Amino acid sequence: MNLSFDISGISERARLAAGVLAKAATAAKAAAIRAAAGEIRARAHAIVAANATDMAAGAANGLSSAMLDRLMLDAKRVEGIAAALESVAGLPDPVGATIDGWERPNGLRFSRVRVPLGVIGIIFESRPNVTADAGALCLMSGNAAILRGGSEAAHSNRAIHAAMAAGIAASGLPADAVQLVPTTDRAAVGAMLAAHGLIDIIIPRGGKSLVARVQNEARVPVLAHLDGLCHVYVDAAADPAKAAAIAVNAKLRRTGVCGAAETLLIDRAALAMAPAILAALLDAGCELRVSDELRALDPRLKPAVDADWDTEYLDAILTVGVVDGVVGAVRHINRHGSHHTDSIVTEDAGAAETFLQEVDSAIVLHNASTQFADGAEFGFGAEIGISTGRLHARGPVALEGLTTYKYLVRGDGQVRP
Amino acid sequence: MNLSFDISGISERARLAAGVLAKAATAAKAAAIRAAAGEIRARAHAIVAANATDMAAGAANGLSSAMLDRLMLDAKRVEGIAAALESVAGLPDPVGATIDGWERPNGLRFSRVRVPLGVIGIIFESRPNVTADAGALCLMSGNAAILRGGSEAAHSNRAIHAAMAAGIAASGLPADAVQLVPTTDRAAVGAMLAAHGLIDIIIPRGGKSLVARVQNEARVPVLAHLDGLCHVYVDAAADPAKAAAIAVNAKLRRTGVCGAAETLLIDRAALAMAPAILAALLDAGCELRVSDELRALDPRLKPAVDADWDTEYLDAILTVGVVDGVVGAVRHINRHGSHHTDSIVTEDAGAAETFLQEVDSAIVLHNASTQFADGAEFGFGAEIGISTGRLHARGPVALEGLTTYKYLVRGDGQVRP
Repeated sequence: MNLSFDISGISERARLAAGVLAKAATAAKAAAIRAAAGEIRARAHAIVAANATDMAAGAANGLSSAMLDRLMLDAKRVEGIAAALESVAGLPDPVGATIDGWERPNGLRFSRVRVPLGVIGIIFESRPNVTADAGALCLMSGNAAILRGGSEAAHSNRAIHAAMAAGIAASGLPADAVQLVPTTDRAAVGAMLAAHGLIDIIIPRGGKSLVARVQNEARVPVLAHLDGLCHVYVDAAADPAKAAAIAVNAKLRRTGVCGAAETLLIDRAALAMAPAILAALLDAGCELRVSDELRALDPRLKPAVDADWDTEYLDAILTVGVVDGVVGAVRHINRHGSHHTDSIVTEDAGAAETFLQEVDSAIVLHNASTQFADGAEFGFGAEIGISTGRLHARGPVALEGLTTYKYLVRGDGQVRP
Repeated sequence: MNLSFDISGISERARLAAGVLAKAATAAKAAAIRAAAGEIRARAHAIVAANATDMAAGAANGLSSAMLDRLMLDAKRVEGIAAALESVAGLPDPVGATIDGWERPNGLRFSRVRVPLGVIGIIFESRPNVTADAGALCLMSGNAAILRGGSEAAHSNRAIHAAMAAGIAASGLPADAVQLVPTTDRAAVGAMLAAHGLIDIIIPRGGKSLVARVQNEARVPVLAHLDGLCHVYVDAAADPAKAAAIAVNAKLRRTGVCGAAETLLIDRAALAMAPAILAALLDAGCELRVSDELRALDPRLKPAVDADWDTEYLDAILTVGVVDGVVGAVRHINRHGSHHTDSIVTEDAGAAETFLQEVDSAIVLHNASTQFADGAEFGFGAEIGISTGRLHARGPVALEGLTTYKYLVRGDGQVRP
C-alpha cells in the first residue's frame, strides 16, 4: 500500500461528510460556500504567493505560454474565484425536490425525490480555479468531493483548498466535504479510477489524453466530456445574413472551446449564398478546407482531405462541404459528428424540425450559434462540464446533473399478495 | 477475428435500426410489438418443440430442477409471453416528451426532450421469455436491442426471436430492431462488453456470477441489478399487527426475489413486540438467526454470526437484531444494506420521515412490505430490472429508464457575444 495516498481513508471520510451534506439545508450549504469564498478573499496574498511557486516551476519546466496563462493567478483572478463561489451559493438547490408522485389502487403513495449522488471524484489539470468551482458545485448539490489536481498547480490548489476547507469548517459543515488528494503522484489517479463502491462517479476535466486514460481505466462510472466536433448547416431556406453571422461566430468567437464549429455544411440548393459566407470567414482570418465543388469560389480556399471531416481543430480552421438538403446534413452529422452540438440555419420551419429531431446530439440548435453550448448560456448558472455520454446527464451538467433520485413509498400496512 | 460473431456487423445493423426506431410513431412501435406477439402465438408449437430440445439437453447436463423450471416453456407460458408483449405495447411511450422548457433573455427558447438511448445490449441466462420481454421494452422505448441468451436456452431463444423478428418486419419496422447474437460462445459476451461506442448500455439479467463478470469487464456503461440485502425495521411506535404481517410477507412471500427482506431490526424500545413477531416468522417456517439479547425468547432461535448481517440468503432464513431507535436503524442499514429496498414499520410520522429521508436506498418504504420492489407494483407496467447503481436510473427500470434526453434550442439568428 502506498502510504502517501490512502484512497480508502479519504473516501471513508468523504462518505461520512456526504451523509451530513445529504441532510444539510440549502441555507447551510450556501453559507458554507460563502464562507469558503470569504476565506479565499482573506487569503488572496497567500494564494497568489503559492501560485508564484507553481508559475516559477512551470516556466523552468518549459510549460507553454498557454498553459502558464491557464495556471496563473493574480489578485483579480482570485477575486473571480471567490465571486464564482458566491454565484454557486445563490443557485437553486435541486436536492429534496419531488420529481414525481402518484398513488396506486392498493393505497401505496409513491414519490420520486432528488438526492445527491454521494462521493464525486474530480480529476483535473492546470486551472487551479477548478479546485474551488468543482468543490462548490459538489457541495451545493449535497455531494462530497475528492479533488485531484495536476502537479503543475500543486501549490495553488493546496492554498485554495485550505481556504475552502477552513471556510466550510467554520460554517459548521464538515471540512471533509471537499478534500484535495495530498499527492500529485499519477498512481493517485489510478487508485481513484479503481475505487468502485468508494467513489460514485469520476468527472475528468482536462485534455484528451487525461479523458482517454480515465475512459480506459475507470472501474467507477465516468461523466466524460469528449470531443466537440460541431457543425453548422446552411439550408436552402437560410437567411443569408444570419448564415454568415452564425458561421463566423460559431467558428471564431473562441476557437478553443468544445462548442466551436469545426465543419460548415451548405445545402446544394443554397450554393448561391456560399461566396458571401466563405468570404466573411476568410476575411475574419479563418482557414477554409473545402470540398471540390467549392474550390473555384475563392483563391484562398484549400482542398479538404478525408480526415478533415472528422477533425476537431480547436483552431481558426473550418472544413466546408456541400450536402443534399436537411436529410443529407443529418446523415453527415450523425456519421461524422461527436453528438455534442450542431446547428441549422433556415427560415423553413419544417426543415428546422427535421434537423432538431433527427440530429443525434446533446444540443441541437436552430438559427443560433453552436457557441451557446455552455451551462451559463443555458441559464444553469454554472457547469461542471458538458457530457457527451448518453447516460445519466447529457449536454451541460450543473447541479441537477450531480443528483440522482430515490423512491419513497408510504403505506399503512400493505403486504404484497 | 471470430467469424462466428461479428460484433461490428451486428451493432452497425442495430444502429441503423435505432435510427428508424427513434423516429417511429408510438402506434408503429406498438403495432410491431403486437405483430411479434401474434407470431409468437402462431408459432407456439414450434417454440415449445425447440424448448423440448433445450430441456432434454438441460436434463442430460444435470441442470437443477429450479433451473429446468425457469427454462421450461409450455403452451400456457408461451401465451403468457405473447400477453406480456401486448401489455408492453399498451404502455405510454416516453419518447418525444418535453421534460422542461424555458426561454432566456436573449430570446433563445430551450427545451429538453426524451430520446431513446440507442443500442442496448442485454445479456441474460436461462429464462427464454427475456428474449421477448427485453426486446419489446427496448423497441417500445425506441431502442435497438442486441440480445445474448445463455446456451442452455439456445433453441428456445432462437425460436422466440425468429417469431419476434418476423412480426416486427411484417409490421414495417426493421427486423434488426431486435437481434439475437447467433452464438452462445462466452467470447460473444466479452465482445459485447468491449463494444464501447457500438453498444450504448449493457443490461445483465442473471445470477451474481454473470453480473460480476459484466461489472468487471465492461467498457460499455452497465445498468446493473446487484444484491438486494433488504431490511425491515420495527420502530417503538409500530403497530404490532402490521409489524408481524410486514415482516412475514417481506421475508416469506417469495424468498428468491431481490426485494425479499434479509434482516429484521427491532427497536430496543419495541422489544415487547419481539416475541409475537418472531413466533409468527418461526411458525411460518423461517429460520431466525438472532443477536444475543433475543436468544432467550424462543428455543427455536439460532445465534447470528457477524457474516449474517451482510448475507443475502434468498431463502427462508432471516437475521434479527436490536437497534437503538430510528437513528440506529438508519446507521445499520446504510452500513450493511445494498441500497436496494428498506422499510420502517411505525405509527410515528416523524420517525417515518427520518427513515425515508436518511436511508440511502433506491426504494424506502413506510408501513409496507419490501416485496413491493417491482416495476409492476410501482405502476410501470413492466421492468427490465432494478438498478442498484446510483447513475442514470435507480430502482425499478421500465421504459423511461431506457431513454435519455437532448436539448433543442430555437433562435432567430442569435450569436454569442
